[in-house]
Amino acid sequence: MSAEAKPTSVSRSIKTMLVFPGDTNYHGTMFGGNLMKYIDEICVIAAMRHCGRRVVTASTDSLDFKSPVYMGEAVELEAFVSWTGRTSMEIYCIVRAENLERGERRTTVTCFNTFVAVDENGKPAEVPKVVPETEVEKKLYASAPERAERRRNRREEQFYIDE
Amino acid sequence: MSAEAKPTSVSRSIKTMLVFPGDTNYHGTMFGGNLMKYIDEICVIAAMRHCGRRVVTASTDSLDFKSPVYMGEAVELEAFVSWTGRTSMEIYCIVRAENLERGERRTTVTCFNTFVAVDENGKPAEVPKVVPETEVEKKLYASAPERAERRRNRREEQFYIDE
Amino acid sequence: MSAEAKPTSVSRSIKTMLVFPGDTNYHGTMFGGNLMKYIDEICVIAAMRHCGRRVVTASTDSLDFKSPVYMGEAVELEAFVSWTGRTSMEIYCIVRAENLERGERRTTVTCFNTFVAVDENGKPAEVPKVVPETEVEKKLYASAPERAERRRNRREEQFYIDE
Amino acid sequence: MSAEAKPTSVSRSIKTMLVFPGDTNYHGTMFGGNLMKYIDEICVIAAMRHCGRRVVTASTDSLDFKSPVYMGEAVELEAFVSWTGRTSMEIYCIVRAENLERGERRTTVTCFNTFVAVDENGKPAEVPKVVPETEVEKKLYASAPERAERRRNRREEQFYIDE
Amino acid sequence: MSAEAKPTSVSRSIKTMLVFPGDTNYHGTMFGGNLMKYIDEICVIAAMRHCGRRVVTASTDSLDFKSPVYMGEAVELEAFVSWTGRTSMEIYCIVRAENLERGERRTTVTCFNTFVAVDENGKPAEVPKVVPETEVEKKLYASAPERAERRRNRREEQFYIDE
Amino acid sequence: MSAEAKPTSVSRSIKTMLVFPGDTNYHGTMFGGNLMKYIDEICVIAAMRHCGRRVVTASTDSLDFKSPVYMGEAVELEAFVSWTGRTSMEIYCIVRAENLERGERRTTVTCFNTFVAVDENGKPAEVPKVVPETEVEKKLYASAPERAERRRNRREEQFYIDE
Ligand SMILES: CC(C)(COP(=O)(O)OP(=O)(O)OC[C@H]1O[C@@H](n2cnc3c(N)ncnc32)[C@H](O)[C@@H]1OP(=O)(O)O)[C@@H](O)C(=O)NCCC(=O)NCCS
Ligand SMILES: CC(C)(COP(=O)(O)OP(=O)(O)OC[C@H]1O[C@@H](n2cnc3c(N)ncnc32)[C@H](O)[C@@H]1OP(=O)(O)O)[C@@H](O)C(=O)NCCC(=O)NCCS
Ligand SMILES: CC(C)(COP(=O)(O)OP(=O)(O)OC[C@H]1O[C@@H](n2cnc3c(N)ncnc32)[C@H](O)[C@@H]1OP(=O)(O)O)[C@@H](O)C(=O)NCCC(=O)NCCS
Ligand SMILES: CC(C)(COP(=O)(O)OP(=O)(O)OC[C@H]1O[C@@H](n2cnc3c(N)ncnc32)[C@H](O)[C@@H]1OP(=O)(O)O)[C@@H](O)C(=O)NCCC(=O)NCCS
Repeated sequence: MSAEAKPTSVSRSIKTMLVFPGDTNYHGTMFGGNLMKYIDEICVIAAMRHCGRRVVTASTDSLDFKSPVYMGEAVELEAFVSWTGRTSMEIYCIVRAENLERGERRTTVTCFNTFVAVDENGKPAEVPKVVPETEVEKKLYASAPERAERRRNRREEQFYIDE
Repeated sequence: MSAEAKPTSVSRSIKTMLVFPGDTNYHGTMFGGNLMKYIDEICVIAAMRHCGRRVVTASTDSLDFKSPVYMGEAVELEAFVSWTGRTSMEIYCIVRAENLERGERRTTVTCFNTFVAVDENGKPAEVPKVVPETEVEKKLYASAPERAERRRNRREEQFYIDE
Repeated sequence: MSAEAKPTSVSRSIKTMLVFPGDTNYHGTMFGGNLMKYIDEICVIAAMRHCGRRVVTASTDSLDFKSPVYMGEAVELEAFVSWTGRTSMEIYCIVRAENLERGERRTTVTCFNTFVAVDENGKPAEVPKVVPETEVEKKLYASAPERAERRRNRREEQFYIDE
Repeated sequence: MSAEAKPTSVSRSIKTMLVFPGDTNYHGTMFGGNLMKYIDEICVIAAMRHCGRRVVTASTDSLDFKSPVYMGEAVELEAFVSWTGRTSMEIYCIVRAENLERGERRTTVTCFNTFVAVDENGKPAEVPKVVPETEVEKKLYASAPERAERRRNRREEQFYIDE
Repeated sequence: MSAEAKPTSVSRSIKTMLVFPGDTNYHGTMFGGNLMKYIDEICVIAAMRHCGRRVVTASTDSLDFKSPVYMGEAVELEAFVSWTGRTSMEIYCIVRAENLERGERRTTVTCFNTFVAVDENGKPAEVPKVVPETEVEKKLYASAPERAERRRNRREEQFYIDE
Repeated sequence: MSAEAKPTSVSRSIKTMLVFPGDTNYHGTMFGGNLMKYIDEICVIAAMRHCGRRVVTASTDSLDFKSPVYMGEAVELEAFVSWTGRTSMEIYCIVRAENLERGERRTTVTCFNTFVAVDENGKPAEVPKVVPETEVEKKLYASAPERAERRRNRREEQFYIDE
């Protein structure tokens, strides 16, 4: 039998950072790939806080960049476990860019990443259930099984084209 | 009127790299986020080679990690323009991990990223058409409009949940 | 006349991160200097959120490392403006290390850094007052003038030994 | 009984570096936190050269930044053991910024960091005595016990405010 | 007896990258040292692909930088085994800088690095022979023994001046 | 007419650093390419200290790695201007690896890099003469014209093989 269920608040994790020259292209806007790297990092922390085990990234759902992020701005990433399977966890992540001089924030990306807990041998291991509490958390939790289903379907379609 | 059409071979770009300690977690397997960062970088190069302009990442489609990548392995990323809209380009990227001591390769990820060309003022700018040549390129080109359609749909659904 | 006073909640900033191989020495414990770098970064964000201007680090007070931080642990840094002068802001920062597998946290460092807001020419610029709200914030605010006094004194003593 | 005493010259260590874009904020001046990271690194080397053991940063005394350091300048850090306790070493570090085009240098920071030598199990281990030789070294050595006393006192006062 | 001979195509490796702010000095041109670091990395991959073993850099021949490389340009490095000794491999590397907006390429550096395969104890280990196929590969292979001879001679002359 | 001659002591520059996990391969020995990067950095500083101008790397002579450098060791690089042409400077660099626990040092590499001073438009600019003082400096100075000659010759031979 697996461990006790945990409320979403246990995994909720925040990472705020300044956008450095090394994160941007030569026109001063942030590379999408660098943001994806930071998203993965905060999601790993949220997933590990929930399950207390080592985790690996199983997949990322699609991701749309609503607006550029500029050098010198701050970026705040917030992540929490929005749903759990047997060994997998769906993490919801919301990214807000912030102009520190004008004090304005805007949502730049929201996305879902799936992580799998693994044991000492790298084999999938059971995770505790998550208990959503706020309205948003409950909404995300309720719509999760449909997203999980869609991921299973796309795994079957994929890799049809390799060279 | 936009520039002359270009064959896929113009944009095809390769990046081979060793997986360094800094790319991996403390169990020696690569972070998914770091791989996404490198995918974005090689896709940017492919997109710029095609359109000769500055580009920004508009979106990434979903992405499944089939197998872990270990420290000390090599990773080879290959990317090319698989389809073009008016100002956007769909880039196909295939990632192969390689155990250099055993000489074995395996496909780890295949994915589609979409980039938009922008002019000096950051406004979307027209891109040349792409001309697929190999069987694989033609297959990807033929199936692209359907993927573009799906991206348009998902953009409408999204951001329904922000806090 | 300077801008409106702001509650501490405006500047409160959090940065959670995994301790990577590159942050540690070859025995797997974090370098103190790397932690100081991250402390400075989150304090810069807290200071800019309060004053809406570019800031520079004027000083750090003394800092004691109570316990080592290990590779693979998470570190959570929290910072907020604890006191304001005319152009300077005192930022309080508390660092907690966290063993993600055991779910245990411990306070590793608490410290005070002072930042000065600067204008376009790098000259000190006035900052809004801060309004403490919680018990801890009020205690820190009340004891701040004494710390500011001590900093002024030490500035006069210093640099007596240069070669 | 501990090892033979060593003159200060054994531990004196120098690190000269260029200030890179990645070390600076978007106005081209160096982040204080990055300088603190480099200070820690050169102090670790000085401490290890003296005691021949692994060391950990126990504390840093207060630190005032007299002047900004600009991108493209060089920074020269010099560190040596200024005093030794039983298992701890006080390291004095002086940082000079240098405009390479005008050939001008200025002292930017001087500070004291304390390191503790540790054995294979991470337990404090005895260090050799240091023998000061120059005037400056002797002055620093003579005033060290008072600084050590002040550090002991502040350790007792600290952490009174945690949340 | 050593392993089977391998054609040059087995080791041919490509690395394409964008020149980032962190690779350049404050006038926006790439540091020679950073390029040398990337050259070494792609050569290590080529050498390991050929011999299937861990390798160490034994030497680099002289290297002339024909033209600066600018921030925002791409750099494509290509490397392959051009000759083999008993335990050493000569790697030929050609570096092309590319202005992505104008679609122009220029050769920036060509060079020879020598790597030695080592076993588990760090001792030199035999490598498979290489079989050149193209005209260029054959020319490089034919002229290699003379370069190897020159390297042996210079090893004897060297280190005559140490302080 | 160019500026006043300067003694070698003006340009002599030292950089000491710890070998970090990120500098080494997965067997814990330093990558040759990373060492070359640091060599270039300290040589740039020595060259700029001599001429007070921006410089670019023109060439590196051959370079032999006598012994591996291990993670956790220190590396001390020392560089100075050993000879000057009209706009170029030859920099001599000596690298010593140091086992901090055993207090042992060994010379790992000695090499010559050539830099050219450039003006605001990137055009070669005259540099002051260098005045050697110690025995070693005089020996290096005396043998420099022969090395300069050899570099001129090799430039003519090179690039004969490009694809
Ligand atoms: C993720 C991984 C452990 C799954 O292993 P597997 O053998 O397919 O395991 P299973 O089929 O038993 O599935 C285990 C769980 O993962 C889920 N899963 C597997 N692939 C998934 C995907 N692409 N997206 C979402 N969930 C996935 C399954 O639904 C299942 O969930 P459940 O236990 O909650 O029902 C494996 O594919 C892996 O190691 N991938 C590489 C991970 C990695 O290293 N990422 C970074 C690469 S740089
Ligand atoms: C430093 C450390 C080893 C001291 O351990 P401890 O159990 O307090 O040891 P002790 O009380 O026996 O003290 C050992 C020595 O350290 C000195 N010391 C302890 N804390 C100190 C501090 N904050 N400042 C200065 N010296 C300190 C003591 O005075 C004593 O010195 P002496 O032997 O010369 O008389 C321990 O606190 C530690 O591991 N801290 C974390 C270090 C670290 O990882 N830093 C980087 C964090 S990111
Ligand atoms: C910080 C700095 C702007 C202060 O400039 P200054 O000419 O001394 O300015 P002033 O004397 O008018 O002081 C301005 C404020 O800074 C405070 N201040 C100055 N030095 C300080 C110190 N070492 N510690 C704390 N506060 C300090 C003053 O108390 C005053 O505060 P107030 O306006 O709230 O009363 C200047 O010293 C500087 O630019 N330092 C370098 C900052 C930097 O680049 N840091 C990173 C280096 S790598
Ligand atoms: C390269 C190294 C393994 C050679 O060891 P060695 O004891 O000299 O070995 P040997 O004399 O048996 O020579 C082995 C092979 O290396 C070649 N070799 C040695 N030094 C060389 C040099 N400087 N340039 C080119 N080839 C060299 C020899 O010619 C011989 O080649 P072959 O087997 O094809 O005929 C050793 O010098 C070493 O470990 N160097 C440090 C490598 C390193 O860590 N580089 C990065 C430093 S940051």
